[in-house]
Amino acid sequence: MKSGMETSDRYSIGVDIGGTQLRAALYPEEGMAPVQLATTPTQGPEGEPLDRLLGLIGSILPASGRVAKIGVGVAGPINPVSGVVYRCPNISGWECLPLAEIIEKRFGIPTALGNDANLAALGEWKYGAGIGHHDLVYLTISTGVGGGVISGDRLLVGGRGIAAEVGHITVDPDGPLCGCGHRGHLEAFSSGTGIVNYIREELERGRPSILAGMEEQLNAAQVADAADAGDPLAAEAYQRAGTYLGRGVADMLHLYDPTIVILGGGVIRAGDLILRPMRAAMETSVMSPQYLENLVVTTAQLGGQAGLIGALVLARM
Amino acid sequence: MKSGMETSDRYSIGVDIGGTQLRAALYPEEGMAPVQLATTPTQGPEGEPLDRLLGLIGSILPASGRVAKIGVGVAGPINPVSGVVYRCPNISGWECLPLAEIIEKRFGIPTALGNDANLAALGEWKYGAGIGHHDLVYLTISTGVGGGVISGDRLLVGGRGIAAEVGHITVDPDGPLCGCGHRGHLEAFSSGTGIVNYIREELERGRPSILAGMEEQLNAAQVADAADAGDPLAAEAYQRAGTYLGRGVADMLHLYDPTIVILGGGVIRAGDLILRPMRAAMETSVMSPQYLENLVVTTAQLGGQAGLIGALVLARM
Repeated sequence: MKSGMETSDRYSIGVDIGGTQLRAALYPEEGMAPVQLATTPTQGPEGEPLDRLLGLIGSILPASGRVAKIGVGVAGPINPVSGVVYRCPNISGWECLPLAEIIEKRFGIPTALGNDANLAALGEWKYGAGIGHHDLVYLTISTGVGGGVISGDRLLVGGRGIAAEVGHITVDPDGPLCGCGHRGHLEAFSSGTGIVNYIREELERGRPSILAGMEEQLNAAQVADAADAGDPLAAEAYQRAGTYLGRGVADMLHLYDPTIVILGGGVIRAGDLILRPMRAAMETSVMSPQYLENLVVTTAQLGGQAGLIGALVLARM
Repeated sequence: MKSGMETSDRYSIGVDIGGTQLRAALYPEEGMAPVQLATTPTQGPEGEPLDRLLGLIGSILPASGRVAKIGVGVAGPINPVSGVVYRCPNISGWECLPLAEIIEKRFGIPTALGNDANLAALGEWKYGAGIGHHDLVYLTISTGVGGGVISGDRLLVGGRGIAAEVGHITVDPDGPLCGCGHRGHLEAFSSGTGIVNYIREELERGRPSILAGMEEQLNAAQVADAADAGDPLAAEAYQRAGTYLGRGVADMLHLYDPTIVILGGGVIRAGDLILRPMRAAMETSVMSPQYLENLVVTTAQLGGQAGLIGALVLARM
């Protein structure tokens, strides 16, 4: 009886630090339904992002009971051992910030950091599409391409915590410039940005398309709509994005040998427009059919919650 | 006293199954100096390779004392969980062979299988160039390109045991055909075969070189000698091999975030001919200088012993 009472008072906190939003959730000892959830814009009139974050965490602390651990996901490279944020692309001034230590000191609660895409992989593995798998590759395709890898039931973090940058493998050295400044990375072909950039370039070359004139504000969802409406250039942009994605996934199969590949992010909402060429390229690019044996290729289940739930999984480790 | 005596009688056996040679070694409880070592050609007048292998293992069993475990390295894809050899490129008939079970039944000794390149990574990590590192990428560049990865002090094997085929990532989709039948893999550019094929193609195109007329029997060591003698085509072949190798290594940094990259295999004996362009390409291709922080790039220490010593490490696990 006593131990039952004690355990029901043992909370975990998950925090998700995005470029536009900060989210924090208080979870009971089991399950993934938060008992408290708070959200605030990352940038706001009152306070620096760090103060806003600490305030947000403070606002969901339980009135009674103990918080065992805080798990924090950051959209940027972090060191999971030292708890330092190397940098956060959307929050200026967060350079080599000892964030875990700052949170621990403020609240007296052990705190662990993770990269948001890595944590999303962890979330999908524990509570989403990857339940029951031991070796998993997760890719999120949105404005960029990120991801995470579970290998032998463990998150692969690497020696500095910056492993599994799956969007930044070179799929064609003569390819377009990537957001990171290098040429021909998977992200440069298959991200929403890559799709839109391709349309822009082809329009500039004089290719006809119902997207002509929309170059300025174009996004990947509009390109998908145009493809669904029969626009050949729009369909070609997704065909190309999917083909390179499939080649990149084949590389992941050779390197990580997962039993499941989970695809998330807004661009995947285009469905077969990108998934069909992805599967075709993956199957023709793989060096041995063995890599495809009992391989599950599926879409993410946790959507925008993946990062927060991954932070919860980290807190419960 | 008694426990001391018992432990000194606890041997391990390492076995290395190559295309041309079978090797087996009996090791004491500690250290990497074998007390017995036996070698035989894989193919011979008496007996099938499997019989020759079992005979070889039988020949090094200790007269007294107990063998705790046998570790077996196989030049081909294997399943480390089931102990099945999927196939062995140089031994016909080894298709889905339950080798671990066969050895266990014959000798009554627990037996574990590993892929030879993965085991070489394990050997270099435990007893070679990688001592003290937790995250390691090992590449062996010879007629092909193979390798293995240690991530968080564990060999990365994947869901089917066929992970870390580092030679079979696509570094240029328009590149030459790889030994595996696909186009533009790292192996097609940077292996000895890739180097020789490049020389042959360029000679056929009429390029001058002191290697002209030697096309038939050419090997990578001869190309290295020609480069050292000032032959521009030979130097270019290594420059190209090293450049693609460096790009491939940059991909590995992004994907595995190792603190050490160990390069083995005969082609690496060309030294700076391949290592200088490799380093240059790695440094310019990496997306963030963080991946290079405290990164050790070095050559393998165990040479031809790496596979056998890796089998020993596997046996001691």
